[in-house]
Amino acid sequence: MKISEKRVHEHYMRMAMSLARRGTGATSPNPKVGCVIVKDGVIVGMDFHRHPGAPHAEVGALSMAKELAKDSTLYVNLEPCTHYGRTPPCCPLIAQSGVKTVCIAVEDPFDKVQGKGIEYLRSSGIEVIVGILEEEARWLNRGFFMAFKEGRPWITLKVATSLDGNVALIDGSSRWITGQSSLKRSHLLRAETDAILVGIGTVLKDNPELTVRLIDGKNPLKIALDTYLRIPLDAKLFNEGKTLIVTSKNSSPQKMEELISKGIDVLQVPTDFSGKLNIKEMVFKLPSMGIHYLLVEGGPRVLSSFFEADLCDEMALFYAPKIIGQGKRIFPQILLKDMIEIPKGKIRSTKRLDDDLLMEVDL
Amino acid sequence: MKISEKRVHEHYMRMAMSLARRGTGATSPNPKVGCVIVKDGVIVGMDFHRHPGAPHAEVGALSMAKELAKDSTLYVNLEPCTHYGRTPPCCPLIAQSGVKTVCIAVEDPFDKVQGKGIEYLRSSGIEVIVGILEEEARWLNRGFFMAFKEGRPWITLKVATSLDGNVALIDGSSRWITGQSSLKRSHLLRAETDAILVGIGTVLKDNPELTVRLIDGKNPLKIALDTYLRIPLDAKLFNEGKTLIVTSKNSSPQKMEELISKGIDVLQVPTDFSGKLNIKEMVFKLPSMGIHYLLVEGGPRVLSSFFEADLCDEMALFYAPKIIGQGKRIFPQILLKDMIEIPKGKIRSTKRLDDDLLMEVDL
Repeated sequence: MKISEKRVHEHYMRMAMSLARRGTGATSPNPKVGCVIVKDGVIVGMDFHRHPGAPHAEVGALSMAKELAKDSTLYVNLEPCTHYGRTPPCCPLIAQSGVKTVCIAVEDPFDKVQGKGIEYLRSSGIEVIVGILEEEARWLNRGFFMAFKEGRPWITLKVATSLDGNVALIDGSSRWITGQSSLKRSHLLRAETDAILVGIGTVLKDNPELTVRLIDGKNPLKIALDTYLRIPLDAKLFNEGKTLIVTSKNSSPQKMEELISKGIDVLQVPTDFSGKLNIKEMVFKLPSMGIHYLLVEGGPRVLSSFFEADLCDEMALFYAPKIIGQGKRIFPQILLKDMIEIPKGKIRSTKRLDDDLLMEVDL
Repeated sequence: MKISEKRVHEHYMRMAMSLARRGTGATSPNPKVGCVIVKDGVIVGMDFHRHPGAPHAEVGALSMAKELAKDSTLYVNLEPCTHYGRTPPCCPLIAQSGVKTVCIAVEDPFDKVQGKGIEYLRSSGIEVIVGILEEEARWLNRGFFMAFKEGRPWITLKVATSLDGNVALIDGSSRWITGQSSLKRSHLLRAETDAILVGIGTVLKDNPELTVRLIDGKNPLKIALDTYLRIPLDAKLFNEGKTLIVTSKNSSPQKMEELISKGIDVLQVPTDFSGKLNIKEMVFKLPSMGIHYLLVEGGPRVLSSFFEADLCDEMALFYAPKIIGQGKRIFPQILLKDMIEIPKGKIRSTKRLDDDLLMEVDL
């Protein structure tokens, strides 16, 4: 491929991914997909996947292009499908449309698709180019790839902290360390995720709603870790949207019954020798519920557990320009004894949110 | 003043301040001063003050401009002097040069100058405009103004920390949390300051040199807080440059004698009821030693003391993208009990230093 040609392909693929991003938070368990169809340097069709059950991006783009699709180049950030899911497969449609070239960023990891879409298109006489902005495309659908490759969702730990790493005063009070802009941004994080998780400590202390109130967006599934089912039946958590309570195998069947009769899902997982819920077992159950992105909001014990279990892909650290001194730490349960042991991340981005600073760190 | 005229003045004043900045770290107890002389839209002279005893910026700029100074506009970020110091006063020279207009950012707080320079120039028939970029000019010489107004230096607390606010592992080991770029940058902070301060704990644990090694720059005065004069006579601190040991009034006269005979300065200050050195008394003695900028490098007890005593104007927080959990806190001695009590700063800037992030916070 000539350099100039590669640049053109990357340009349109970037556009397809921008479109794909419009589906953030709404497509799971499907991936975010955008499609751009270009003929003689003119965009003749484009679309993105909106939510499960809605048409795939390729279908929308082809229906916009109509007969102009003939001899065009189609850009899509994920391999088109060949199987019947909730909607008919895209590959036959693409072949029928007369598209000449299909540029794909990355192969679909889903075994019903993996490579079969590419094969189908090639055997239909279409030129197929694979790997345009592959890395960016994997990142765009990191939860989708994580679910298929590792069997668990992409996990983000969210922390609101003072500059000196305290999430609360020594008495536990933490409202509000960070400001309104940070709160709004954290609601955006919620809207972009499939599920939010908190510990029962946070539920009992703050009685949070865990909803997306400050921005437009859907409410994700709310998950509470509650070993002994201490959650009150009138917790605000239950007001709106779906909730999943994760508890131990020995929890009171009566309380479980009460929760289930209120329409609340309950998942029982084993506990370890110290009585802590086996979060590993829990997270590996989530993809089957359509959860590809999990946002862990705390408190500190829960954050520590995820960090210790190496179930942490990313951190969203909201720093308020404040000093607390000797308050509640972010990761109180972690005790590293050697400099070499210290896990090292990578600061991906920083963003000012009025007085606060959001640091996004890859782990 | 017309808007367009104000813009022109601000433009050249900004240039004068850029020049002034070249003196950073080298001019104390003098201020940083830059001067630009403009005639008919052409810069005919410019200079900055290099170090105490060197010519003032105005003198250098006038000698570059020579006879072109006649009917020109002279920009200087601080009021020109009228008194004989180490060098002759600038005002008569300016008056003799035939300069038509003098733009001054801010009045000199030094009582031998304050307002007298402006008066002198005006009575010589020169038009004087005061207050162009005044705020920026005060900030540029914040240590100089602090020393004259409050009687103490501008104090910066330097902290190298993990993301979760730990400056060391629980066993105290801290080498190295932050990376090479942060280290280099912290040497720049040292070169830009008049004195660095550490506690005896840091001296005994790390035996630091506290010099500027990784960049070009002068070594500032090194100050160690050492209540009981525990410092070994062969501490690396004494290898190069000047050192001041601050100790209590009851320290061993013999050890003091030994230090003084090695050419090391010793300052005795009272201790409070808990036996801690009265750092307030110490910092108010520093301007008379030519110290207008003090960089407090730790450890945590010393940082806490400065923070508690409200002797903290700015923090330079170097965050490494690491998690330590339950390590040594930044401010272990501070215990705030109410959200309203929490001191709030302002994040002035963030800067990526390879893997690390430097956050500069005004307090």
